Amino acid sequence: MNFDDIIALDKADPLAKKRLEFDLPATTVYLDGNSLGALPKSVKSRVAEVVSQQWGNDLIKSWNSHSWIDLPTKVGEKIAPIVGAAQGQVICCDCISVNLFKLLCSALKLKSERTVVLSTKDNFPTDLYMVQGLSNLLGPDLCQLQMVEEQDIPQNLTESVAVLLLTQVNFRTGKLLDMAKLTQLAHNKGIVVIWDLAHSAGALPVELDKCEVDFAVGCGYKYLNGGPGSPAFLYVAKRHQNIITQPLSGWMGHANPFAFDAEYAPAPTINQFQCGTPNVIAMSALDAALDVWQDVNMFQIRNKSEALAETFIELIQANGCLQNLALCSPYDAKQRGSQLAFSHNNAFAICQALIEKGVIADFRAPNILRFGLTPLYTSFEDVWLAVATLADIVRSETYKEQRFNITLKVT
Amino acid sequence: MNFDDIIALDKADPLAKKRLEFDLPATTVYLDGNSLGALPKSVKSRVAEVVSQQWGNDLIKSWNSHSWIDLPTKVGEKIAPIVGAAQGQVICCDCISVNLFKLLCSALKLKSERTVVLSTKDNFPTDLYMVQGLSNLLGPDLCQLQMVEEQDIPQNLTESVAVLLLTQVNFRTGKLLDMAKLTQLAHNKGIVVIWDLAHSAGALPVELDKCEVDFAVGCGYKYLNGGPGSPAFLYVAKRHQNIITQPLSGWMGHANPFAFDAEYAPAPTINQFQCGTPNVIAMSALDAALDVWQDVNMFQIRNKSEALAETFIELIQANGCLQNLALCSPYDAKQRGSQLAFSHNNAFAICQALIEKGVIADFRAPNILRFGLTPLYTSFEDVWLAVATLADIVRSETYKEQRFNITLKVT
Repeated sequence: MNFDDIIALDKADPLAKKRLEFDLPATTVYLDGNSLGALPKSVKSRVAEVVSQQWGNDLIKSWNSHSWIDLPTKVGEKIAPIVGAAQGQVICCDCISVNLFKLLCSALKLKSERTVVLSTKDNFPTDLYMVQGLSNLLGPDLCQLQMVEEQDIPQNLTESVAVLLLTQVNFRTGKLLDMAKLTQLAHNKGIVVIWDLAHSAGALPVELDKCEVDFAVGCGYKYLNGGPGSPAFLYVAKRHQNIITQPLSGWMGHANPFAFDAEYAPAPTINQFQCGTPNVIAMSALDAALDVWQDVNMFQIRNKSEALAETFIELIQANGCLQNLALCSPYDAKQRGSQLAFSHNNAFAICQALIEKGVIADFRAPNILRFGLTPLYTSFEDVWLAVATLADIVRSETYKEQRFNITLKVT
Repeated sequence: MNFDDIIALDKADPLAKKRLEFDLPATTVYLDGNSLGALPKSVKSRVAEVVSQQWGNDLIKSWNSHSWIDLPTKVGEKIAPIVGAAQGQVICCDCISVNLFKLLCSALKLKSERTVVLSTKDNFPTDLYMVQGLSNLLGPDLCQLQMVEEQDIPQNLTESVAVLLLTQVNFRTGKLLDMAKLTQLAHNKGIVVIWDLAHSAGALPVELDKCEVDFAVGCGYKYLNGGPGSPAFLYVAKRHQNIITQPLSGWMGHANPFAFDAEYAPAPTINQFQCGTPNVIAMSALDAALDVWQDVNMFQIRNKSEALAETFIELIQANGCLQNLALCSPYDAKQRGSQLAFSHNNAFAICQALIEKGVIADFRAPNILRFGLTPLYTSFEDVWLAVATLADIVRSETYKEQRFNITLKVT
């Protein structure tokens, strides 16, 4: 595969034009959209308008006149088709961790005779921490976390398990779990399922309704490009909405918040999963960012994601000096999300050297170099440039220079 | 009191120049800063810089290079002097309701042999709802809400009470509770105290450390002017930080979040009260908004607040046609926060008519007309104009026009 092949792939890419809707720094190859999505151009003007006009000029009136109060449902409805959900089941609010806490409580109440929350040892830590927090609060007689290896999930789906909590795409390796199959296996044993879509919403077709998922949470700031620390979202299947409650019952989840009743009465809709006042500026940024998806088909996204990854792997394999990079992601594209992870003893220093040369990848402890492929704005040329830069660094051993072995703070 | 007196009061006001630091619409008298604070000019440029430069250009690197990761503590430390807290006790995160849930759990654990959370019937509903949510989750054997009238708090501070949860300034009436006295009375009975500072932080001198308060929560979008739905803050007295935990134990509260350990280990500082990823855009807006306070003394704020309120009451009393407005706030300035509430049978319609004439007040069910006085940018002339407009509306009975009796949505 040579550079002409790469250019041809970009020319044939039906999503290539979407890159024009993003502000990307000219001299950077950005392969970290799985950590923080790039800035959609429309967000800049929207945020400026919300701050100056809606807040600055129209002030408190904007809750009605600019429909601030409807942002959580409006944004939820924009996310719904991206994750395969019919209307009325997705709402934007809080962060993933807080939303997961709400749903863990709801799910455990549905299965009050059982106590175990089953998850994987390599799940994203905050998901495990939230179960641990709930377990400490309720005590082990009501909630306990059981962690297993990914391949051992099926045999651990026993009738003591209340909730199966899984992240669809592993944050380190990019391994994609089979949502349809695992949800079905869990349901066969009467287990309620919560999926974390942090690394899959916007990365590949997600089919929550079709897989009959019970609950899900997801992230606004990765593949949905809502900005750093963007509000998250949650999904509750319609069939559960009238029979469950959640304990973070703030006023925005009340059936009639502006009656200021002293007694809580949950909204009979997905709105009951809101808690406090929505974060208008941040949620408006996400709202604007989601417009990028209007003319995008998730199967186009998947096709391009797989092609980008295969190109990446092929270029790595063709490069003799890169043979010490071991692919930790599955070789089979169907079992991968939209990122590639390679292990290398010097992964941290190599990552720093890449960043210095304008190729933004990231490092995940202990030894993983992670490249996010975001089909809306990653080009085949980006992949070419990334591998060429990586090869330069590894061949010349510049990553061994002392300045790349600085102390890790945040990656 | 005539208009010349009003002009003289503005001329003598040492805080008058602070108004220049805000963007206020020219033809509006804004008396709703107790619901949504006005826009500090510095926020516009800060938000634009965070979106375009920090996010758009510097992307993921900004977690380090622009210290996004430190925003919760940095913003917390800026709030600390406003609420009378020494360093290391305040952090910015989540919303008030979520923060209250964390602290309720912490406080109940400190008093695990007791079950009652005592609060007031007229507390802001979300505070009561969060206790109800926790009570539903834990069951009445571990947590139950008892609501009493404000004047009956002291005699209900019994040894079955675990937690006293109070809002310092009542959201409807503006009544100010005596933090020092009530905290002391509660402590005498071994009760842990949580104060909600939504209507007091930035409105008057708050003395958390001096009053030996245990825990507090507060709002970023009222008197602190952080923007609609701005992140909230919480306070945990240093003496409690190493002996308590909280159940919303997301990764940002971990002692070492980027080690990605499967086991949660709380940070040994106020950081353990964080949960998920901080909302960078919104928190940056609040960070910029807080710079307005750098050269402000809270006792100046209090003096002006009292003078604005007394002027308001005097002008109302001098106006024969306004005698049907009954002051629901205490007459004694020392017992009031920084707002005035009047009841009137047509409060909702009058409020709508005021807004149409450019005087932004707000309505609180069932019959309260509420005027927020925000010393940083409310002038004595604002008060004069507001009362004059109110008198015009009441005298001419224009508020009885059908268009002002529209359905209430959000106020």
